[in-house]
Amino acid sequence: MKFPAPVSATWMADFIGAELHGERNALIHGINEIHRVEAGDLVFVDHPKYYDKCLQSPASFIIINSDAVTIPAGKGILVCDAPFEAYLKIVQHFKPFTPSAENISKSAVIGAGSVVMPNSFVGNNVVIGKDCIIHPNVSILDDTIIGDRVVIQAGSVIGSDAFYYNSKKDRPNWYRKMLSCGQVIIEDDVEIGAGCTIDRGVTADTRIGRGTKMDNMVHIGHDTQVGPNCLFAAQVGIAGGTIIEEGVTLWGQVGVSKTLTIGAHAVVLAQSGVPSSLAGGKTYFGYPAEEASTKRRELVWIKRIPELWKKVMD
Amino acid sequence: MKFPAPVSATWMADFIGAELHGERNALIHGINEIHRVEAGDLVFVDHPKYYDKCLQSPASFIIINSDAVTIPAGKGILVCDAPFEAYLKIVQHFKPFTPSAENISKSAVIGAGSVVMPNSFVGNNVVIGKDCIIHPNVSILDDTIIGDRVVIQAGSVIGSDAFYYNSKKDRPNWYRKMLSCGQVIIEDDVEIGAGCTIDRGVTADTRIGRGTKMDNMVHIGHDTQVGPNCLFAAQVGIAGGTIIEEGVTLWGQVGVSKTLTIGAHAVVLAQSGVPSSLAGGKTYFGYPAEEASTKRRELVWIKRIPELWKKVMD
Amino acid sequence: MKFPAPVSATWMADFIGAELHGERNALIHGINEIHRVEAGDLVFVDHPKYYDKCLQSPASFIIINSDAVTIPAGKGILVCDAPFEAYLKIVQHFKPFTPSAENISKSAVIGAGSVVMPNSFVGNNVVIGKDCIIHPNVSILDDTIIGDRVVIQAGSVIGSDAFYYNSKKDRPNWYRKMLSCGQVIIEDDVEIGAGCTIDRGVTADTRIGRGTKMDNMVHIGHDTQVGPNCLFAAQVGIAGGTIIEEGVTLWGQVGVSKTLTIGAHAVVLAQSGVPSSLAGGKTYFGYPAEEASTKRRELVWIKRIPELWKKVMD
Repeated sequence: MKFPAPVSATWMADFIGAELHGERNALIHGINEIHRVEAGDLVFVDHPKYYDKCLQSPASFIIINSDAVTIPAGKGILVCDAPFEAYLKIVQHFKPFTPSAENISKSAVIGAGSVVMPNSFVGNNVVIGKDCIIHPNVSILDDTIIGDRVVIQAGSVIGSDAFYYNSKKDRPNWYRKMLSCGQVIIEDDVEIGAGCTIDRGVTADTRIGRGTKMDNMVHIGHDTQVGPNCLFAAQVGIAGGTIIEEGVTLWGQVGVSKTLTIGAHAVVLAQSGVPSSLAGGKTYFGYPAEEASTKRRELVWIKRIPELWKKVMD
Repeated sequence: MKFPAPVSATWMADFIGAELHGERNALIHGINEIHRVEAGDLVFVDHPKYYDKCLQSPASFIIINSDAVTIPAGKGILVCDAPFEAYLKIVQHFKPFTPSAENISKSAVIGAGSVVMPNSFVGNNVVIGKDCIIHPNVSILDDTIIGDRVVIQAGSVIGSDAFYYNSKKDRPNWYRKMLSCGQVIIEDDVEIGAGCTIDRGVTADTRIGRGTKMDNMVHIGHDTQVGPNCLFAAQVGIAGGTIIEEGVTLWGQVGVSKTLTIGAHAVVLAQSGVPSSLAGGKTYFGYPAEEASTKRRELVWIKRIPELWKKVMD
Repeated sequence: MKFPAPVSATWMADFIGAELHGERNALIHGINEIHRVEAGDLVFVDHPKYYDKCLQSPASFIIINSDAVTIPAGKGILVCDAPFEAYLKIVQHFKPFTPSAENISKSAVIGAGSVVMPNSFVGNNVVIGKDCIIHPNVSILDDTIIGDRVVIQAGSVIGSDAFYYNSKKDRPNWYRKMLSCGQVIIEDDVEIGAGCTIDRGVTADTRIGRGTKMDNMVHIGHDTQVGPNCLFAAQVGIAGGTIIEEGVTLWGQVGVSKTLTIGAHAVVLAQSGVPSSLAGGKTYFGYPAEEASTKRRELVWIKRIPELWKKVMD
């Protein structure tokens, strides 16, 4: 998320009650979570395990709960006891949740030739392009951007909050919600089936590339980037922060884990599970997904165990 | 889809800009895709691989992008460069998408004793029988026919478009939507759980047989025919054009591929995957689904590999 | 379900047309299905296989289709031909389905600071606590109780009917719906993702414990009891009557069967299937789910079959 206008580091330190060390004069342009951070951004970290990753990231300022770190040249740190709480305070200030009371928010822009059918909801600052069809009972939540000739079938949800929590098991509620302030971007000529859910980015965007088509009940996690001309069959689930390159086909009920990459033109056969990155241009199968020819041979080998047993035990 | 009234072959050739060869005088009664075509119908084909299948199908007229084929006796071909575009033009002419602006379309017929709860949508030409309960936030899309004593739980979608595309990878958008002009037919005493999606037929119908019961989040693809007294547990997905005979039980998260048949009274255990037809009357398990007893023995054999290894390697 | 006030056993016998044997004077306080029955309750049984289980349960009165049983001391039996029909008659009398015609029922109570967004439905006798967010197109069905600071994302359904049928294959409709008269209870600080479905208890309650967080498209069956601080990733499905103890993590697309227990702090890895109870504090994987370390070794053993084969066959 970018702020409406850059803010000074000293204002920010004062706002969240932090001590400012290192760079003091640069402006802060926005806040992002670590996977999507850019130069000029603020990021937060509250666990020593991730200190280095955040300090060495493109972020210009780091909210951190220790001053015993080496500050990279040109960067500033904002030291406070509860960086996660500081993140929440910043998001609530710059992007407060203001639920629309209308079916179609007055701030939404809907292009010529587009139809929003009954019982659908279009939230604040949503932009829908030309010649789109939004079927009934669809929820398009705040800040979603939709291109031209997009079809969203009935009952789908675009822009739901990320499934992303700050976790500490020494308090009564283990999980605290990391407020989502990102958005969903759906490019031209995409079709989303019925009963799909696409989560918004935590601080950045979830993107569905041009011409990609999804069947019913497909789930796309926060910050996932789907390339153009992909084809996802029904009940596919993709976790957060993953990259699906162009022309990837995922058949029914495939599950894809988080923050990995599936290369261009890969095909993953039905019900497979993808726990780590896959090279493009090949066909995969099984859990964990392997090249389909390898996996098929493996199934044949399993069938031969009784013969082996007989040979060995006789 | 049948046309409102039969049309002459010459009118049709003129309408889509095709040359007519072979039979010229017969009437065309409707258009269907190849899996559901009947005598009197028009079908289209644009790939030489499928020319014969379409020419030899029950269709009376074939839209095709070659005149170098042998025309079966009594049939006519309509030769044009882009048969798929011709299909789209025909569907848009005879079955234009006319989104209802009302929650319950004026053309819908709802039987005595039936309840449609708030925030549900009932589209054009929908027929709902007697003593049905349509729970909140349900979308029943155009042309759906529902019998008596049917229960559709909240958030379900009946009659979403088929996931069916014309695919060519030498153009910017690989996938062009094959417009759906079919419908869903739900027979008496069916129950559909919450959050289910049932796609309409592409040109014909998707049918759910009498007394069949589905749990939540079940997906049924286009043109699938489900027999009476089936039981589908939660998160089952069935792809398009498949036949599920009577009394079939599919347990939770089972996936079934397209255009296959599962025989009467078969039982498929949870999370199994069905890539090809299964005979009736048996219990299946695993991916690919095999008879459960076979698959269970296989799991035992896998456990014995270390023992085999020890024996052989010692 | 408890009745509005206790009723006499003789009134009940007369109401359902049954003969009363054994205890005649005690009052009946409610009716429950066998998994959730308490002292003072009525239960029904119509198959000899389950006679003993019901007679020996905590229930004080048993509707049964045989008088040739031994009645435990202090209990009464109500003998009739069709106990299941008697159950339906009792539920329809004490808990008739009265669909709300309003988006938000007049009998619903919504706490201070809570927001119900457009196109959401709130049924009869629903109680929503303070500072909750109910996103658009959510269905909260009759009798649901929701605590404070609960978030329910768009398109979710809370309180759908149980997938629970009386099954007899010698009649035209094999499955007759066991009417649900139970409810859903969601404790404080729970978050439900988009497109989730949580079924009500058949006669008792389905409960989601304090601080539990669910991603999108999670399905929870009737009467399931989920402890506090659980984490369920997208597309998890849990069947009915299961107990998930506190702090359990289920990763994406996990399936859990009915009436089993997953112990506290267990972790079940993505796409695993759980057919029977799991001890707490361990990590599980595969179908059927086993300890992850065991299962991972098994995958390595399978890879070694070709080497074994070579050694043995050479």
